[in-house]
Amino acid sequence: MSTLKEIVEFLDKYLDIKNDYNDVMLNGAQILINENAGVEKIGFSCDANIRSIKKAVKENCDLLITHHPIFKKEMKAFRLTNDLLSKRIIEAIKGNLSIYSAHLPLDFHEEVGNNISLANFLFLSSKTKIINAEDFSFVVCDVEFKDMDEFLRHLKEKIKLNGIEVYGKTQNEIKKVAIFTGGSSSLLEECLALTNFDVFLCGEMKHAFSWHPEELETCVVCIGHYYSELHGLKSLMQVLANNFKDIRTCFIDEPPLKKVIA
Amino acid sequence: MSTLKEIVEFLDKYLDIKNDYNDVMLNGAQILINENAGVEKIGFSCDANIRSIKKAVKENCDLLITHHPIFKKEMKAFRLTNDLLSKRIIEAIKGNLSIYSAHLPLDFHEEVGNNISLANFLFLSSKTKIINAEDFSFVVCDVEFKDMDEFLRHLKEKIKLNGIEVYGKTQNEIKKVAIFTGGSSSLLEECLALTNFDVFLCGEMKHAFSWHPEELETCVVCIGHYYSELHGLKSLMQVLANNFKDIRTCFIDEPPLKKVIA
Amino acid sequence: MSTLKEIVEFLDKYLDIKNDYNDVMLNGAQILINENAGVEKIGFSCDANIRSIKKAVKENCDLLITHHPIFKKEMKAFRLTNDLLSKRIIEAIKGNLSIYSAHLPLDFHEEVGNNISLANFLFLSSKTKIINAEDFSFVVCDVEFKDMDEFLRHLKEKIKLNGIEVYGKTQNEIKKVAIFTGGSSSLLEECLALTNFDVFLCGEMKHAFSWHPEELETCVVCIGHYYSELHGLKSLMQVLANNFKDIRTCFIDEPPLKKVIA
Amino acid sequence: MSTLKEIVEFLDKYLDIKNDYNDVMLNGAQILINENAGVEKIGFSCDANIRSIKKAVKENCDLLITHHPIFKKEMKAFRLTNDLLSKRIIEAIKGNLSIYSAHLPLDFHEEVGNNISLANFLFLSSKTKIINAEDFSFVVCDVEFKDMDEFLRHLKEKIKLNGIEVYGKTQNEIKKVAIFTGGSSSLLEECLALTNFDVFLCGEMKHAFSWHPEELETCVVCIGHYYSELHGLKSLMQVLANNFKDIRTCFIDEPPLKKVIA
Amino acid sequence: MSTLKEIVEFLDKYLDIKNDYNDVMLNGAQILINENAGVEKIGFSCDANIRSIKKAVKENCDLLITHHPIFKKEMKAFRLTNDLLSKRIIEAIKGNLSIYSAHLPLDFHEEVGNNISLANFLFLSSKTKIINAEDFSFVVCDVEFKDMDEFLRHLKEKIKLNGIEVYGKTQNEIKKVAIFTGGSSSLLEECLALTNFDVFLCGEMKHAFSWHPEELETCVVCIGHYYSELHGLKSLMQVLANNFKDIRTCFIDEPPLKKVIA
Amino acid sequence: MSTLKEIVEFLDKYLDIKNDYNDVMLNGAQILINENAGVEKIGFSCDANIRSIKKAVKENCDLLITHHPIFKKEMKAFRLTNDLLSKRIIEAIKGNLSIYSAHLPLDFHEEVGNNISLANFLFLSSKTKIINAEDFSFVVCDVEFKDMDEFLRHLKEKIKLNGIEVYGKTQNEIKKVAIFTGGSSSLLEECLALTNFDVFLCGEMKHAFSWHPEELETCVVCIGHYYSELHGLKSLMQVLANNFKDIRTCFIDEPPLKKVIA
Repeated sequence: MSTLKEIVEFLDKYLDIKNDYNDVMLNGAQILINENAGVEKIGFSCDANIRSIKKAVKENCDLLITHHPIFKKEMKAFRLTNDLLSKRIIEAIKGNLSIYSAHLPLDFHEEVGNNISLANFLFLSSKTKIINAEDFSFVVCDVEFKDMDEFLRHLKEKIKLNGIEVYGKTQNEIKKVAIFTGGSSSLLEECLALTNFDVFLCGEMKHAFSWHPEELETCVVCIGHYYSELHGLKSLMQVLANNFKDIRTCFIDEPPLKKVIA
Repeated sequence: MSTLKEIVEFLDKYLDIKNDYNDVMLNGAQILINENAGVEKIGFSCDANIRSIKKAVKENCDLLITHHPIFKKEMKAFRLTNDLLSKRIIEAIKGNLSIYSAHLPLDFHEEVGNNISLANFLFLSSKTKIINAEDFSFVVCDVEFKDMDEFLRHLKEKIKLNGIEVYGKTQNEIKKVAIFTGGSSSLLEECLALTNFDVFLCGEMKHAFSWHPEELETCVVCIGHYYSELHGLKSLMQVLANNFKDIRTCFIDEPPLKKVIA
Repeated sequence: MSTLKEIVEFLDKYLDIKNDYNDVMLNGAQILINENAGVEKIGFSCDANIRSIKKAVKENCDLLITHHPIFKKEMKAFRLTNDLLSKRIIEAIKGNLSIYSAHLPLDFHEEVGNNISLANFLFLSSKTKIINAEDFSFVVCDVEFKDMDEFLRHLKEKIKLNGIEVYGKTQNEIKKVAIFTGGSSSLLEECLALTNFDVFLCGEMKHAFSWHPEELETCVVCIGHYYSELHGLKSLMQVLANNFKDIRTCFIDEPPLKKVIA
Repeated sequence: MSTLKEIVEFLDKYLDIKNDYNDVMLNGAQILINENAGVEKIGFSCDANIRSIKKAVKENCDLLITHHPIFKKEMKAFRLTNDLLSKRIIEAIKGNLSIYSAHLPLDFHEEVGNNISLANFLFLSSKTKIINAEDFSFVVCDVEFKDMDEFLRHLKEKIKLNGIEVYGKTQNEIKKVAIFTGGSSSLLEECLALTNFDVFLCGEMKHAFSWHPEELETCVVCIGHYYSELHGLKSLMQVLANNFKDIRTCFIDEPPLKKVIA
Repeated sequence: MSTLKEIVEFLDKYLDIKNDYNDVMLNGAQILINENAGVEKIGFSCDANIRSIKKAVKENCDLLITHHPIFKKEMKAFRLTNDLLSKRIIEAIKGNLSIYSAHLPLDFHEEVGNNISLANFLFLSSKTKIINAEDFSFVVCDVEFKDMDEFLRHLKEKIKLNGIEVYGKTQNEIKKVAIFTGGSSSLLEECLALTNFDVFLCGEMKHAFSWHPEELETCVVCIGHYYSELHGLKSLMQVLANNFKDIRTCFIDEPPLKKVIA
Repeated sequence: MSTLKEIVEFLDKYLDIKNDYNDVMLNGAQILINENAGVEKIGFSCDANIRSIKKAVKENCDLLITHHPIFKKEMKAFRLTNDLLSKRIIEAIKGNLSIYSAHLPLDFHEEVGNNISLANFLFLSSKTKIINAEDFSFVVCDVEFKDMDEFLRHLKEKIKLNGIEVYGKTQNEIKKVAIFTGGSSSLLEECLALTNFDVFLCGEMKHAFSWHPEELETCVVCIGHYYSELHGLKSLMQVLANNFKDIRTCFIDEPPLKKVIA
């Protein structure tokens, strides 16, 4: 049986976890109960919240791999007490659950990254190009949509969600889509300085940047932070399953509980 | 006629602009074309974006007062070139438009703050209490709603908007509402450590904090960053009109251009 | 039954834990399994090492109070993995053992501090004076020993240990003894600038400071870091026993395993 | 017609503007009114003061290239208000005048630098050598003057100025002259550690360093900060005129207004 | 006989040396050969250069009090080797010469400060007012000169120096003179924001600030850094002579060796 | 006769003094009285304390080479006054004694380092391997001891000292000894992560790390900070003697004055 240590070493290497794009979060192993113990089952979830941790424990996972890490690179006055972060850590330790996280190294990975995985999911046969900057990376796909309506219909068909948001000016013809998962709308200006595109597809828009699409004369489409970042984890799950035949895997799908009032 | 300098001094004092709660943004005067010139008309808008600046210039405003500042307290390699920030600054200067901003000092002001103004707008006759922490402040209102549905109906009636979001567990009876405008959902845990409430009403939720309402066993209601922050500016507009009788004012309502796909 | 929260609040207040003399270590609660649970038994030990934690768990303690904290105030790239610190934390959490620590606030406390407690233990009836600097504090006792030999005989009689070390010049007559527990020999020069004494009694000497007694024409006596810091914990144990009658206490005496070859 | 963007790109590349010798000033584009607009005329001046800006506007320049930048690399609490810096920026923007600056990259440039240009102006036929350190660079010229008087007569003849200052011991025979324009006298000690010279020719001497020539047993000659830095700009003006045939240029000579009382 | 320690303590208290206006230089004792030794003679000089140190040693001074300190508050990679600073320190120690310095605390002292002493020297009977800012302080004198020529004639008569420099616009009638010794011309803008004056009298002008007088529509007169800072030291010398009757004093007048070519 | 400058250059190069392993101490020249003077005699001592400095002066040394430097890389508010550091510097300068120090570059040097020199002294014929980390380095020797007793007997025979301390669990058979001189016991965990060994031999143990040997299931043997660091200096002394035939050398053996009470 493969040990936790072997799996962590495989992930560190495969995801090139040390190249973290100056992430403020800490990538790699977060909690390792016993690195010499064998691993029978691995869960995958976007976040290391209580719900995901409890489910992973219930599913008898030895390890939970998440996209969003528990720890920041620098922590001041860190105590394990009564706050939410501490409760998650204590819950995991009591459940014998180790946790490994890959944030930016998973977003930008060339094979299983959130960007490339979402691009493949949405526009399977299209030509894609990875654009690299110092601290980030995104993907541009060649597509063919005659107008925004057609583009949005394609999106809805693929991701089957209400609440897609569109910011800025609508294009007549859509030939290039930039894909940058998560809260990347703050980087729209930098991305546009690197390459041209008709639509910028991302997860989440913050108010402070909601003027940018219009002022940059482009269009941003947000499909939700959570939904934009599921495909990288699923790709990684497949890679682990292929490389560690004796380990079982499960995907733990726990979106935020949110109700929108029409 | 009152000069720009006199108005800036009045605002600095009335808003106690030096007490900025360790804001990363720069509060107070942002651009003063000529502080000795007289001021005939003042515009008020949430953001100093191109649309608001152009409208203020078209309305013949000499000064635009915004909630969100143009400048951060510390700026690295700042140039006035081709980026969005520079374009706004150049647009204002060419239009002879001075700009003054009040961010956290306006959010937390005891008389015209965004928090207290929204509380008064929504729950006019209720008893309110200001809760102060080192770097922030919020308001708690005593209310009487028999359940969440009644509470949400009241909200919708008042703010007349689609898209209100509800996170976390729904309360049976609502007696205390915390009001903290803008992107304050990241401070939910700290607020709850300071006082109890049944609902936390704010502007915007970020994904990273979307698990908190549920894990803290409370409920968060988001009415939108922009809509949560209009009432402080309107209160401040009234104060200026009262104190400078010869100056005309206008409110520039420019919400972000956003379309939600059902 | 008193809750963990009540005990932590009592300790934070009694030890004035926020005044930490610019400690690099983090004082106060380190690990709280569940702050609302009741506490039946508290262990006290100098260090939160594996031996002390295991013994506290075996003794059914709910809380371990140590002198040396687990956490520093600032931590970089902290992970709970395979290192000694992580193993201690995981061991404590799995054993349902909360940990509270008081470092400099315990060393310098006026009633139960390590300095004053050791002074009382060694020179019971003598007059003592607390000398305060910005970042530290020590105690000076009026004593009467006709020479160093008599002084050392008295020490040995009291602390019953081999291996007491004497640095610097030997005094003829000893009238004032400074007491500063732990690794304080690095502060000898600062202490001597604040007041006069014939002997400086402390725990541990580092090589870099071993020249100081001689160059400052004074004498330093080291009784061992561990042995110098037991009396503060014992005084604090008594205070807790008096204030929480329903709680049992136990002292966990785990000195470092060290063998000296003659 | 060439655009502003093309000229900025040419300058950035030709001056290798990113290699800024750890300058505290910000090099390169300072203000670009519209980088896509065409440029008909470029002014060159040592400083971006009000007089130079007004003159450039009056001369219908689209761009002013200065040696001393407007912006520092890091700015705290920067506002565009009533101070001199703001007034210059507002004056330029209202006059549709873009500004580009090259400080240390112009001082030390191998072809058009202030150092090499002054060396060529003063000692045309002499052999010159560029000496490079980590954060600065200067030029040493082989010359032949039989004494200081002859050397100073040559200087006066060339630069036609009163007020040249001489510090330190006077040499009998002058064979090597170091040339380092501007306020470089503070670097005399470092320069002398790198190579030998008989005279150090620079712009300006600060009191704190006025003892150095004597204590280092060398001689410093100051011709004035302004006058030492005109030749680099003039060389650069020629380079631009050669590369952009359709653009007119003008040199804006605005020395500080200073009267010396005999 | 008074000891060095007593004199240092007197100076520290009289000059309130801890209030150093955020000076980058280190104020107070620089080198104390033996603080318990008696002091027979004290020299006073503006700078701790080799010439002043040698003269003080030759004059049998035990202590040299200077305006400009030897040490900065923070020093990186400080070695006592072959550089000018080291040579001065070694020269002083070998000559048994202690050094004490007072920089900003001497500039701004209310009784013996450089500012107030120069004001008294130049405009004896005039009314003076001290203007305090957070990090600096200057003096404003009420005077009566019918024009600039009369003012400059008065200056020349008093200080008997060639080379006084005048920057900016000349006033018709001079009623208020600001006095701020040393290299304070960089603070002209801040000073003018605090109070009005017709002339700003200081020591030294740097090129970067030489545009300010003109742009601020005021006038700056520079009498030389060295000559502006002699009077504070002379006042302090008198205070020491009065308080330590058994100590001899001498003033060491060592201006920089500078020749100006007409 | 070789000059001080030549010797410093030789040492800087031979010890590769710029590669200082991020030392907090300042390596290389500390005090150079006159770098152009000739050097007749060099003393070597572990520390630059008063006793060693006085002895070097008495022995007519021109230069003292120590392992522990005088200066840190960064010094705040450094004055040459009444403290121990100042007294050492003044004592050296008055005695015309220059000082050169090599801390980590001497510990880790491949030919004359403290680690390799101690290894050669203790286990002459054994195979040694240098293990390098980013900020430190240590040596591992292949040895053959049938148990701890035999190993300790060998040590005592070689270093002839009482007071060797043994921490942690005792091994049955000893095949690999790590050697890391000085206060390196704090790095035990990092060293063990790099390679295996049965015993870790070092100088000094601090209380905070005294639990580590036991918790890491290894054994640490401390022979004293001073005694662990003599052999590197002696090796270096030999290298200098070989390279500068005309210079005399002497070893100044000044251990700390310490008495242990049985």
